Amino acid sequence: MYIGIDLGGTNIAAGVVDERGNIIAKSSVPTRRERDYTEIVKDMASLTKKITADAGKKLSDIKSVGIGSPGTVDTRKGTVVHVNNLHMDNAPVAKEFQKYIDVPVNMENDANAAAYGEYITGEDKPQSLLLMTLGTGVGGGIVIDGKIYRGFNGAGAEMGHTVLVCGGVECSCGRRGCLESYASVTALIRQTKEMIEKHPESIMSQWEQKRGKISGRTAFECARKGDRAATEVRDRYIEYVAEGVTNLINIFQPQVFVIGGGISREGDNLLLPIKKFVEKHDYNRYMPKTEIRIAHLFNDAGIIGAALAGDTK
Amino acid sequence: MYIGIDLGGTNIAAGVVDERGNIIAKSSVPTRRERDYTEIVKDMASLTKKITADAGKKLSDIKSVGIGSPGTVDTRKGTVVHVNNLHMDNAPVAKEFQKYIDVPVNMENDANAAAYGEYITGEDKPQSLLLMTLGTGVGGGIVIDGKIYRGFNGAGAEMGHTVLVCGGVECSCGRRGCLESYASVTALIRQTKEMIEKHPESIMSQWEQKRGKISGRTAFECARKGDRAATEVRDRYIEYVAEGVTNLINIFQPQVFVIGGGISREGDNLLLPIKKFVEKHDYNRYMPKTEIRIAHLFNDAGIIGAALAGDTK
Repeated sequence: MYIGIDLGGTNIAAGVVDERGNIIAKSSVPTRRERDYTEIVKDMASLTKKITADAGKKLSDIKSVGIGSPGTVDTRKGTVVHVNNLHMDNAPVAKEFQKYIDVPVNMENDANAAAYGEYITGEDKPQSLLLMTLGTGVGGGIVIDGKIYRGFNGAGAEMGHTVLVCGGVECSCGRRGCLESYASVTALIRQTKEMIEKHPESIMSQWEQKRGKISGRTAFECARKGDRAATEVRDRYIEYVAEGVTNLINIFQPQVFVIGGGISREGDNLLLPIKKFVEKHDYNRYMPKTEIRIAHLFNDAGIIGAALAGDTK
Repeated sequence: MYIGIDLGGTNIAAGVVDERGNIIAKSSVPTRRERDYTEIVKDMASLTKKITADAGKKLSDIKSVGIGSPGTVDTRKGTVVHVNNLHMDNAPVAKEFQKYIDVPVNMENDANAAAYGEYITGEDKPQSLLLMTLGTGVGGGIVIDGKIYRGFNGAGAEMGHTVLVCGGVECSCGRRGCLESYASVTALIRQTKEMIEKHPESIMSQWEQKRGKISGRTAFECARKGDRAATEVRDRYIEYVAEGVTNLINIFQPQVFVIGGGISREGDNLLLPIKKFVEKHDYNRYMPKTEIRIAHLFNDAGIIGAALAGDTK
């Protein structure tokens, strides 16, 4: 049995995972990100002991521990190189963890881990799988021939930071017009707010006044109520996502393309128009097509992927 | 020894290639593309016999023949699925070739073959190499862990057909704003013509009147003469290319990024500003950087790559 730990800015989540990717027990604690990394790793170890006991197992039953971390991870050295908003510069997380529990520890980027989680728990084990997550940012991971693709330096698969709208909205990475600036939840909220300003008579505008807060769901919900302004925002947003999906399919032609992140809970409302767009616009006219689907794991992908990705190095 | 055949719209080029990627003998004949594919394959076989004799070898010395073809290739079946402007729909090229010479025949997409040629003849054998060719279109190929990346269906690596300027100039693929529509030689010629129309007083405009023909070199040449309009075209063009390079580096983080195609003969005039742009804009702040360089093989990459890529399936 394996342990998977998903380190987030808000919570540290951990699970006991079996060979097939089932979670037997899981738990989480707040990250309290202002702390030194050694404190955070100490909590990871405590969490590991707790869930191992919860699962009715012993520490000696653990084959390995996988830790998925945001930011830049050096999988070979077992260090976190840098994470925005966490005190983890060149932090030897794997080694620190082993001070508490003496098991093999694998470090992985969290988005890569999530992609691997989607891959390993799928029924089909495709030749290649690409996960694109639509969340605060646009992230993702790539699994080719059962292995995570990391690039030669471990920093690959930053598909959110590819320019789609040359000269467009400034991105957190410093460039202009990145996919992340148009297809993330953050971008959707910006697009929603801009439309509300232009159309104070819209249902979206009333929604804002009533609830006081615009979210990634606002445009989708109000479009369902027949609001024209909301429909325009939603359809344009889906088009940006679909352009990004098509770009990545033309490059990778993965067997499976998975869409995850908060917005993916819209299910077919998101999936069907994307499929239609790709069908019309992709460059592949003659060979079998990529299957596009919604992530099936949501929050557990990171835990499961981190737990089982150790074999892919 | 191996035979590599590069099928082009104008010529069929073939070479005798040794294990290390050296061309021992080569020759070419016109494609005459209006012909049936069986006629073209017949010429490939004759060419193979000729160069084998030229190299002082016998047909029994040939370990395998590799054929690089434009368009969609089914490497498993050994067929050309479709090529624009050639009569090759679902053409069993490998089988047809074996009617003349009984050797193993490997089919490959020509851009993939060229990427493999750059890889196999390089001194360093990088973990990953990406080739982007700036020609009539923008093509390319990807080599990961010594293997050509084709996607699950063989149609991958179409990096020219990724939208960079959302809603921009219409591309041959039907989408708007593809990298190909901004970074190909065809695009550069369009950009040059547009600027000449706007600035009839420019050196570029006189150049056009004198030579009667605008090429991909016009803006580069006139910029060297100090023409402001030409400098603007050249710099903007290089920026489009560099945005595309940065996108692909953020996705792949390949160890080596090779720029090929006609424009790549500009050498450092093209390479240095691209390097500077990527250095400033890529998403990798903490890990080793991709080495960007100009292709070293030019026209022979396709022959060498086709000859030796058979082992990568």
